Amino acid sequence: MGDFKLTTVEEFEAATERLLETGKKVGADAWQYRVANQTPHCKFGEQGICCRICSMGPCRITPKAPRGICGCDAHGIVGRNFLKFTAGGAATHSDHGREICHTLHNAKAEGPYTVKDPEKLTRIAHEWGVETEGKDIYALAHEMSELALMEYGKPFGYQNWLKRAPEHTQELWQKAEVAPRAIDREVATSLHMTHMGCSSLPEALVRQSIRAGLCDGWGGSMCGTEFSDVLFGTPKPIDTEANLGVMNAENVNIVVHGHDPSLSEMICEYADDPEMIAYAKEMGAKGITISGVCCTSNEVAMRRGIPMAGNFLQQENVVLTGACEAIVVDVQCIFPALGPLSKCFHTKFITTSPIAQMPDSDYIRFDSSNAAENAKAIVKTAIENFKNRKPDLVYIPDMKQKATVGYSVEAIVKTLDGVTNSQVDVTGTTKPLIECITSGVIRGAVAMVGCNNPKIRPDHAHIELMKKLIANDIIIVASGCSAQAAAKAGLMDKEARSLCGAGLKRVCELADIPPVLHMGSCVDISRMMILVSELAKDSGLNISQLPVVGCAPEWMSEKAVSIGNYVVGTGIDTFLGVDPYVAGSDQMAQWLTSGVRDWVEAAYTVETDIEKLVDKMIERIEEKRTAIGI
Amino acid sequence: MGDFKLTTVEEFEAATERLLETGKKVGADAWQYRVANQTPHCKFGEQGICCRICSMGPCRITPKAPRGICGCDAHGIVGRNFLKFTAGGAATHSDHGREICHTLHNAKAEGPYTVKDPEKLTRIAHEWGVETEGKDIYALAHEMSELALMEYGKPFGYQNWLKRAPEHTQELWQKAEVAPRAIDREVATSLHMTHMGCSSLPEALVRQSIRAGLCDGWGGSMCGTEFSDVLFGTPKPIDTEANLGVMNAENVNIVVHGHDPSLSEMICEYADDPEMIAYAKEMGAKGITISGVCCTSNEVAMRRGIPMAGNFLQQENVVLTGACEAIVVDVQCIFPALGPLSKCFHTKFITTSPIAQMPDSDYIRFDSSNAAENAKAIVKTAIENFKNRKPDLVYIPDMKQKATVGYSVEAIVKTLDGVTNSQVDVTGTTKPLIECITSGVIRGAVAMVGCNNPKIRPDHAHIELMKKLIANDIIIVASGCSAQAAAKAGLMDKEARSLCGAGLKRVCELADIPPVLHMGSCVDISRMMILVSELAKDSGLNISQLPVVGCAPEWMSEKAVSIGNYVVGTGIDTFLGVDPYVAGSDQMAQWLTSGVRDWVEAAYTVETDIEKLVDKMIERIEEKRTAIGI
Repeated sequence: MGDFKLTTVEEFEAATERLLETGKKVGADAWQYRVANQTPHCKFGEQGICCRICSMGPCRITPKAPRGICGCDAHGIVGRNFLKFTAGGAATHSDHGREICHTLHNAKAEGPYTVKDPEKLTRIAHEWGVETEGKDIYALAHEMSELALMEYGKPFGYQNWLKRAPEHTQELWQKAEVAPRAIDREVATSLHMTHMGCSSLPEALVRQSIRAGLCDGWGGSMCGTEFSDVLFGTPKPIDTEANLGVMNAENVNIVVHGHDPSLSEMICEYADDPEMIAYAKEMGAKGITISGVCCTSNEVAMRRGIPMAGNFLQQENVVLTGACEAIVVDVQCIFPALGPLSKCFHTKFITTSPIAQMPDSDYIRFDSSNAAENAKAIVKTAIENFKNRKPDLVYIPDMKQKATVGYSVEAIVKTLDGVTNSQVDVTGTTKPLIECITSGVIRGAVAMVGCNNPKIRPDHAHIELMKKLIANDIIIVASGCSAQAAAKAGLMDKEARSLCGAGLKRVCELADIPPVLHMGSCVDISRMMILVSELAKDSGLNISQLPVVGCAPEWMSEKAVSIGNYVVGTGIDTFLGVDPYVAGSDQMAQWLTSGVRDWVEAAYTVETDIEKLVDKMIERIEEKRTAIGI
Repeated sequence: MGDFKLTTVEEFEAATERLLETGKKVGADAWQYRVANQTPHCKFGEQGICCRICSMGPCRITPKAPRGICGCDAHGIVGRNFLKFTAGGAATHSDHGREICHTLHNAKAEGPYTVKDPEKLTRIAHEWGVETEGKDIYALAHEMSELALMEYGKPFGYQNWLKRAPEHTQELWQKAEVAPRAIDREVATSLHMTHMGCSSLPEALVRQSIRAGLCDGWGGSMCGTEFSDVLFGTPKPIDTEANLGVMNAENVNIVVHGHDPSLSEMICEYADDPEMIAYAKEMGAKGITISGVCCTSNEVAMRRGIPMAGNFLQQENVVLTGACEAIVVDVQCIFPALGPLSKCFHTKFITTSPIAQMPDSDYIRFDSSNAAENAKAIVKTAIENFKNRKPDLVYIPDMKQKATVGYSVEAIVKTLDGVTNSQVDVTGTTKPLIECITSGVIRGAVAMVGCNNPKIRPDHAHIELMKKLIANDIIIVASGCSAQAAAKAGLMDKEARSLCGAGLKRVCELADIPPVLHMGSCVDISRMMILVSELAKDSGLNISQLPVVGCAPEWMSEKAVSIGNYVVGTGIDTFLGVDPYVAGSDQMAQWLTSGVRDWVEAAYTVETDIEKLVDKMIERIEEKRTAIGI
């Protein structure tokens, strides 16, 4: 235990430098160089005051040109851009959820897709008022998937999942008219509102941004998470490892990357196949190593313990090791750069989804009807590519950390049951956690989420914030690339409790957990919404009263803004380390950082100084404690 | 007849100049000044090579920075921007259609919304396989509206309306995988594909652009058109007038503007109410004049003969007359500039839709549950505002033309029946038109559509193209602001036949039609798709073989690009006078102007020189004639 030591960002950076040296040998481009080429960024774009919504423009707001050709001012332009950005994210997460629902619709007892958590499926069916008695689990799966798909397009009514929220929250949503209707309708409505000559009133645009966010978090993303659990199993604590050192120079390395587990689950399945392992040996390797990048990595880590090679800004590094036989991608956050980069090495860059088609890739179209056969073909392709490695280009940084991952809400509740005195206490609730918070042993919780962004020193904000928070007895739930930053640093090693304040340390010991709990991929931030809802119900408080905040210090994608909107929309103050292109409008800034509080009891804080960001979060948590007298 | 004379664009411009003088007196801004302030436009934006899809950027492509931070090149950036632009348009048209379906769902025998064309509703029901026998028409309306709303969100299958297309076209769509599924799903899929790290392959982005366009034209827009006809009546030829001179200085002037007829129909209803007319007289006016701007104007002109005050770039002019008591708007293409402009006059700027909320407006939220009462309140507000006019600011240009409008497909077929020898010919077909084309009396047809755009001398392209086309015996069907340009010039006066070539002139005389047929609003371009489908079926040719092309010489909106994609997707060569922000990628240009032809037998031509544009259209029509040996 005395040996425990975090890996530092400086060590990450040194490893990256070494890999960039390899890249230089083969003339590889890298994001670090492209950032230099693209800096400084266009100020109009950065401030959100450039409008390309119609072809009369583009228009740009300046003191001398305070309105676009149609007469829209900076506030309307920034507001429309913000809503379009949100809609892009909500559509993206939700479409991933839709794919999962379609996969569930194709699940069969004989596979390749089966129902791995029938109990969860039955539980959701009861929630939705579906009779399960005497029903075959696959008949139920198909019935439920059809109902879930209707959540995307039903002509009337609100999202089914909203009923999981505390009643107070549901009332706020109704009153503010932000309760989301059909998921796709909210996306389409957002695009309609932002069309030329529609809405330019910041209030209206922000309101729809919240509603579009909520259709993601309490709609599409929740479908994605819940039905992924049904199909692939609800995550339970499991040990794994993180950082590039999980790749194995002697093995065939297949890296899965993207977000939708339908592909990666199949790849993992076939990589474990004795026939494939024998084939790898025949081809001169010692075995097959699957590792992951981005949220696909989070998905298979949580359910299978597949190691995590890295997060968003490390995706080029896996190719730069020279030891990657194939990088197999599904959807979202995949650098188009991987195409030309893979051509500098022997690496096969394999795209699989009609949604994410890229130049310079091998496109092996994947769907649930050909899943088994194509997954096998992909694994074989990787194996056969082992011989093409250039040994003098192979360098895998010897750098990895242990991590315990897989903290679904179910797993957290079960962990809490473990510390409950089952003689006197009710089990199956979040009450033990509430007691820790109420007593002050834990001061509060922060949901750490989001991406990397070169505007912030990569991983540095995630890791430094987490270190300071846990030292202040604030427990962390993390997802997405934030979770991977934590894992790479070692913060998901249970021994990281040594870095906690005395209270949190005691809790970690007692519950046998790391201080940073891995709750999954970015779609799985819906799990966090369920968790806070349970905490609110179990404590009798409103969500906004809980000493809980959200934070995305290095976010970069449209999805992240959609997430921000549903986290705020759920009543959780949200802290951003990167400005969402709204600096050009004081009215928009006012709505986002204050005005929305009247509707949903929470708002944004944007703070690009990371030191200040963490202090503001701690301050907010303490304010919330004071307000409820704990 | 000898007196017939077109109004020239020079005369339009002189009238506008005079109105701008009024504006100067009150310190009013105008689009003409804002264009000057916003010119030159950003070259990156104009070429489509600026990317703001994630917050790592914005990124801009230059020779020294050929890729964005993620590695996306110019082709991927232009392609994603093009698809996002299309999705915005498809969502917007379709959401308008959705509102119409909801209005149909609320139709009741006792009003305010009733079924005015039960025969058409029954016909569509039969098309969709719905039993109508013995069903109350409102029960049928509600059943059909629910089915139509499911077209937006059904989890499986393709759009119902596709079956209206010739079989060959349907086969092309299936083969190219561009047959649209649920309308909103195609919008969401488009946003997913264009999310950071998804598709960057031009082929994939163009393919989805076509599919998203088709979900508009053969989905949402067709719902909008068809169910508007059911609710408000299928248009029949009707006489009206066009241009600012339709406003009446002695009357209360209410201008309706936008796209969705649900509002304007009610306003028209109450403006005709004797109680309201009496009230107007009481307030010192001689009566009430309703006139329209943009597509709302097209809707009420076609069904009620309400005069058309003007098109898109004339919307500020109606306020500048000083005689506009209220400009009442629903959705789309409404200048936010109307807010501050109305404050310079006594004009009430009344917004009514949650979709289009604007600063400096009076927001009277309108929906089918409060339609009657709110329409009445709006008319009253306008009447009571008459007294606030400043007489010295009143100047209405004495300029208008007669127009015969209302050429729905049903009306065209009925007109053709009129010239059929009913003893020997089948009626109810497009065959008489085909015979005219085959014999060469008419050389072909052009669908003239789209907006105004200050990049093109306003209305000039529409009018000059039409003049040359009809002189060359090419008949025109027109919609949207293009139709209004024609009407303002006088090209929808039946006497305009004197400007036609000998063949078309004879046809116009025989059929008693103007040479430019008004087919409706921009949503009604779906009517044109039905018309070409009927022509193809009746002639035994494929749509792409017909000597028919589409043209949007002055387009500006996302909707226009969506339209372009479905017109091309339907097999009709489409000519644009404004580049759709794709100049920055030769690959994208190649796909749009040539590559798509392999899928759908048609493609785009972009030509900003209007003289060349018309010659290219005539040439294409003649090529098509030659190809089929006529």
